[in-house]
Amino acid sequence: MSRTRWIYGRHVVEETLAAGKPVLELCILGELAQTGQTRELERQAKASGASVRRVPRRELDRICGSGDHQGLAVKVPGEGSEGEGASLDALAELPESEKASALLVALDQVQDPHNLGAIARSAACLGARALLLPERRSAPVTQAALSASAGALQKIPVVHVVNLAQGLARLKEAGYWIYGADMGGTPAWKARLNRPMVLVVGSEGQGLRPVVRQQCDEIVSIPQSEGGVDSLNASCAASVLLYEAARQAAS
Amino acid sequence: MSRTRWIYGRHVVEETLAAGKPVLELCILGELAQTGQTRELERQAKASGASVRRVPRRELDRICGSGDHQGLAVKVPGEGSEGEGASLDALAELPESEKASALLVALDQVQDPHNLGAIARSAACLGARALLLPERRSAPVTQAALSASAGALQKIPVVHVVNLAQGLARLKEAGYWIYGADMGGTPAWKARLNRPMVLVVGSEGQGLRPVVRQQCDEIVSIPQSEGGVDSLNASCAASVLLYEAARQAAS
Repeated sequence: MSRTRWIYGRHVVEETLAAGKPVLELCILGELAQTGQTRELERQAKASGASVRRVPRRELDRICGSGDHQGLAVKVPGEGSEGEGASLDALAELPESEKASALLVALDQVQDPHNLGAIARSAACLGARALLLPERRSAPVTQAALSASAGALQKIPVVHVVNLAQGLARLKEAGYWIYGADMGGTPAWKARLNRPMVLVVGSEGQGLRPVVRQQCDEIVSIPQSEGGVDSLNASCAASVLLYEAARQAAS
Repeated sequence: MSRTRWIYGRHVVEETLAAGKPVLELCILGELAQTGQTRELERQAKASGASVRRVPRRELDRICGSGDHQGLAVKVPGEGSEGEGASLDALAELPESEKASALLVALDQVQDPHNLGAIARSAACLGARALLLPERRSAPVTQAALSASAGALQKIPVVHVVNLAQGLARLKEAGYWIYGADMGGTPAWKARLNRPMVLVVGSEGQGLRPVVRQQCDEIVSIPQSEGGVDSLNASCAASVLLYEAARQAAS
């Protein structure tokens, strides 16, 4: 894994700078910079110590390895820097007043970057406090994931855990309830979801690994129509379950 | 618009044949046909009067304009044939016993085929009876839409309406309640969704057109976290609202 990488696109760059994430360099398409629309981004980048460069389209295309950059790219420290400031320990040791309503989302074997991004977007929109990703066999936080997340992966703390089952056990000990999203469980509206919780989402198709399932206090499901259509996609399922948790907390 | 078109991919072809949709021709990659795995598909195609051809990879790539066909493609009548057997009139005139629990989804200005497919998938999984699409300014039912729908666009009846606002007015007269999904409305869990209803989903970014909004009995929203992350994507929002309707119907 390289020490630095380029991420790009208007949304991704704006969110990265606005969130105060570490940025080493900001590249702006020359003609875009001339419109003055990027002044605030340039200011933010400089304030955080990054260098700012105006570049021709051909160079920006080359840097990004794609023409899909909307004129903006930032160089950031390599993978593993997401989620700075969040850790399993910090989540386990939250003050009780904050923990009472804490909602975490853990992904088990979600290997598609697009799904990772889409789930992060839903999690951030629906109030999840952090995203737990196993270090191995997880989708990397790629440009595709960043784009699909519409900025959420720059906002929501991402905690990389070495071993997801052990991480869940640690959180359970600390007072969280572990809910696995899978077929054949309790209909979500019958489960009690208004407590400190970790929602564990498996990969589409494969579901949760048995070792992760074992850590779950309860398996929750979204009742679905029969008739052979594939089940809800992972980000839609996560949205529904996070909504249900919010609904219960509000009632 | 051409009179016929090719659609492809294992899921898409299987669902098209299983749903008994009109099919003119089935093309199978020669080496796949030899494995015997496609025997049932060949039988179904022949039973519905379609011709069956085994073709080399190069020809299948050319037919599909893509290598992403998984060895299977069918030629179907051109666009507009989806939703055969469903019509606005038939939905308006459903027997009261069926109408009581009827759930329809209408899309206003959803122009991204991927979103159309994803919403169709959620709608089919969560028990919607039909999908209403305006004839103009709607995403076409392209291969991308079919793939994103994971077969749902072959299952759920699609009703093309000339004028969405008028179509909604017709359904309202027939006893349906019209709910618009948009920001700033009643939180979904406070709205009464357990009656014959049409859920109207707007495009990401633009929301509902005023002329469509005017037809809505109520605007419903999904309460979301603040902090600048874009709102839920359209298929996730539709999933949450359809889930809420199912939850209310079950309680």
